[in-house]
Amino acid sequence: AGDPAAGEGKVAACAACHGSDGNATAPIYPNLAGQNVAYLENALKAYRAGERGGGMSMMMTPQAQSLSDEDIADIAAYYGSLTP
Amino acid sequence: AGDPAAGEGKVAACAACHGSDGNATAPIYPNLAGQNVAYLENALKAYRAGERGGGMSMMMTPQAQSLSDEDIADIAAYYGSLTP
Repeated sequence: AGDPAAGEGKVAACAACHGSDGNATAPIYPNLAGQNVAYLENALKAYRAGERGGGMSMMMTPQAQSLSDEDIADIAAYYGSLTP
Repeated sequence: AGDPAAGEGKVAACAACHGSDGNATAPIYPNLAGQNVAYLENALKAYRAGERGGGMSMMMTPQAQSLSDEDIADIAAYYGSLTP
């Protein structure tokens, strides 16, 4: 399972759109605070694999491709731990 | 813009996984309560266009393909109106 404390140190890029508190900086982006961790991991892995097109995938695919499995677990754990 | 009241009458299928209150019925599904409406619309349209693979897209693509633009706007407005 991911480590939310480690994840907090890995979300600098994410936070530009999703906020460091998981509240998106614009309505076109999803809020992530309190989101289900399993869903967040699967979504990031789908972006990383190039499976998720449309929407903001031109941004998310390369971002996710810079992440290891451990990074994904940590980041998902961090955002999932926040209160919406 | 979508009509949340109309959307409430269109989420019977969505609710099986995302809950009628926007709280997912299992951690593999995303919570939708209070999610940003523009994001929800774009995500549904990407599924409908077959652009979003991976994750639960085998379920979401056909579901979204049954929705009109108005349905998508209403459903997004409904879930976005709920408190997380």
